[in-house]
Amino acid sequence: MSEKKLITPRKLSGFMELLPHKQMILDEMIEKIKNVYQNFAFTPLDTPVLELSEILFAKSGNSIDKEVYNFKKGDTDICMRYDLTVPLARFVAMNSENLSYPFKRYQIGKVYRGERAQKGRFREFIQCDADIIGLDNLPLVADAECLNMVDKVFGALNLDIVNRISNRNILFGYCEGLGYKDQTQDILIILDKIDKIGQENAIEELAKIGVKQEDCNKFIALTLKKGNFDKVIEEIENLTDNETYQKGITELKEISSYLKCYGLDQNRYMLDIGIIRGQNYYTGTVFEAIVPTHPEFGTVCGGGRYDNLAEYFTDKKLPGVGLSIGLTRLFDLLDQNNMLPEHSLTNIDLQIIPLGNTLLHCLELQTYFNKKIVCDVNYDNRSFKAKMREANKREIPFIIVVGEDEMNNLKYNLKNMKTGEQQLLSKEEILKTLGC
Amino acid sequence: MSEKKLITPRKLSGFMELLPHKQMILDEMIEKIKNVYQNFAFTPLDTPVLELSEILFAKSGNSIDKEVYNFKKGDTDICMRYDLTVPLARFVAMNSENLSYPFKRYQIGKVYRGERAQKGRFREFIQCDADIIGLDNLPLVADAECLNMVDKVFGALNLDIVNRISNRNILFGYCEGLGYKDQTQDILIILDKIDKIGQENAIEELAKIGVKQEDCNKFIALTLKKGNFDKVIEEIENLTDNETYQKGITELKEISSYLKCYGLDQNRYMLDIGIIRGQNYYTGTVFEAIVPTHPEFGTVCGGGRYDNLAEYFTDKKLPGVGLSIGLTRLFDLLDQNNMLPEHSLTNIDLQIIPLGNTLLHCLELQTYFNKKIVCDVNYDNRSFKAKMREANKREIPFIIVVGEDEMNNLKYNLKNMKTGEQQLLSKEEILKTLGC
Repeated sequence: MSEKKLITPRKLSGFMELLPHKQMILDEMIEKIKNVYQNFAFTPLDTPVLELSEILFAKSGNSIDKEVYNFKKGDTDICMRYDLTVPLARFVAMNSENLSYPFKRYQIGKVYRGERAQKGRFREFIQCDADIIGLDNLPLVADAECLNMVDKVFGALNLDIVNRISNRNILFGYCEGLGYKDQTQDILIILDKIDKIGQENAIEELAKIGVKQEDCNKFIALTLKKGNFDKVIEEIENLTDNETYQKGITELKEISSYLKCYGLDQNRYMLDIGIIRGQNYYTGTVFEAIVPTHPEFGTVCGGGRYDNLAEYFTDKKLPGVGLSIGLTRLFDLLDQNNMLPEHSLTNIDLQIIPLGNTLLHCLELQTYFNKKIVCDVNYDNRSFKAKMREANKREIPFIIVVGEDEMNNLKYNLKNMKTGEQQLLSKEEILKTLGC
Repeated sequence: MSEKKLITPRKLSGFMELLPHKQMILDEMIEKIKNVYQNFAFTPLDTPVLELSEILFAKSGNSIDKEVYNFKKGDTDICMRYDLTVPLARFVAMNSENLSYPFKRYQIGKVYRGERAQKGRFREFIQCDADIIGLDNLPLVADAECLNMVDKVFGALNLDIVNRISNRNILFGYCEGLGYKDQTQDILIILDKIDKIGQENAIEELAKIGVKQEDCNKFIALTLKKGNFDKVIEEIENLTDNETYQKGITELKEISSYLKCYGLDQNRYMLDIGIIRGQNYYTGTVFEAIVPTHPEFGTVCGGGRYDNLAEYFTDKKLPGVGLSIGLTRLFDLLDQNNMLPEHSLTNIDLQIIPLGNTLLHCLELQTYFNKKIVCDVNYDNRSFKAKMREANKREIPFIIVVGEDEMNNLKYNLKNMKTGEQQLLSKEEILKTLGC
């Protein structure tokens, strides 16, 4: 046979892949997020990773974003999903008769964006979404429920965040009130980037699209308002009696009262009129959570209210509100900053090391222990010394070495690998010692 | 504004998508499988859904199977993974220095095959794989551990299976012993389809490739051997003294002794020489589990031993053994046969229905209950009657209706929706009544 040519094993760049220890940490984080979503009575949804391009780009008239992975299979034009919201819209439109409303679903799944890979940007990443969809209408308390969940999720992840909340009706109404209704989108785009470009450049850009100098300053001043919810509301509630603006004020007051009932810590959320969120489908509440000790993390969770989830697929009116956590990026940031939750290196509670001709007996023991704990027999061919070294390196908390004496006497030396302490015990006593 | 043209919401055919109740059942099955894998000290792995085509088709010299979703992004030739084994090989080859051996990993993830959609065939499906990889060598007890896990997984899923086990060395050695070593692959392909084409056609095909008439009969007779492990071994162990064949016999005997130590029920596994498994990378143990009451389900779990996992990527010798469950197909079959595990329609333990101006109080109550149970406030705008109807339809087990009296007295009527029974209780008593 001719010699085989080896292919260098490698993965696509921009795709996260973890070694076992890190993967266990990520899985545990997913589990915690899932538990919060479930605790609030959200049910799981799992849509396909692939969608018809026509569906995914219904909004843009089938002009497919360059970032999206898109291909043909036979005659079918297919895309990999780039978020979990369009698939949700498609799902709800298809199944609207078979759902209970408000429909609360969570979906934790991978989405794909084939953008240029760069540090901190992933082409495949896990989104953890939770949305509430109403039929015809959805009370504002649903928005507050999502805000409450943001607080609870990051509480479960043990991460101190501040959720910056606004309501787009404020800036919508302010534009309207000052006579710039038709330029609302353009103005919001500029206001959205004050942080990046600075106030002076923002004023310049506003002036360029025809905003009067004095109004420029007003827009900037309002956009910069942030702080304690009730205090900021008090400061801005009389700026204009425009109806849309006042709707925003009323909604913010209502949200504030709900958040107090939920008992949220006021240090963990604030009103921030500068929160705009690019996507123009948000119509009311918007929010972005940040980690105040690490502003460079940017937004770790965002979301908001949209008036009509599935308008491209159905005449039914389906208002919704939701939140989304980009978990892969968050995990990567935490990892780089040594902020990952602690997790033991191994998932093994007890390892059995057979010595001499005791393997069969060790398998019986393992079967006994497996009913209660994670137990493993190290049946590798390496030397006893190598196995002990390995157990140490892997930080396996307890081991028993089973030689023929142990097998015959049914008593085993349980070794605590951290303290070095040993106890001669029966299998029943071992379980008891390990807390079962 | 011109009227929007609606796009009919639809998904790609061959992609499973479930309503919430079914999704909860599937998730619970995944959870059970995961728990068994973890109990045996397997750690999670999550590889990307996309791989370089060169990697995925290293074995076939980059000739890409038509079934596989394949596309270009810029200059990069990309495939969606069609199984979890090649990605595992790539991962182990890339990270071989950073793993502990035997490396035990599980991966539960979606794989893609763009084959023609037909009933029971899916283009996207969940595979639940567990593999054990050794460095240089891997004792045979690892094979037995996988067989034990097959038993435990289906035990956890409450599904009666029979695991049909063989060792490819038996037929390899038999071919060799009868002088057909060079035709081994062709002979195995024919023997593998006896069930489909019948004995006579199989004999005919064997004759066509030059197998003598008497040997044809011998091959068929051996392939049809199945039943109690030790009994079948006894029947066939002296058929030939070919070395490979005898290696197979020795390995089967060893496996048998391990399975007894694990305490497996002998009704749930058997020796079946007819188990060959198409993929030619299996080199020893092979197995396929079936549901004897539903032979039409076919193989619900399969796997085996391979000598060298990553031979296309590294010179390191990495023997392995693993099992794989095609969960999407299994779920679909169970569903069609009304064999899905039971699961309550809802995940809600208690629903609060506000009446009059009590919403804020209900949110406080929910926050109290959420610490222990899944509790939901039905804040929908529909009528009280509609909400009660909905709670009934969704089979929500307990509700409390909170009007102003309840709010003022801090006593609530806990209604058991199944029995209709009501009890006037404080929130603390409610938790106690619900078993917290």
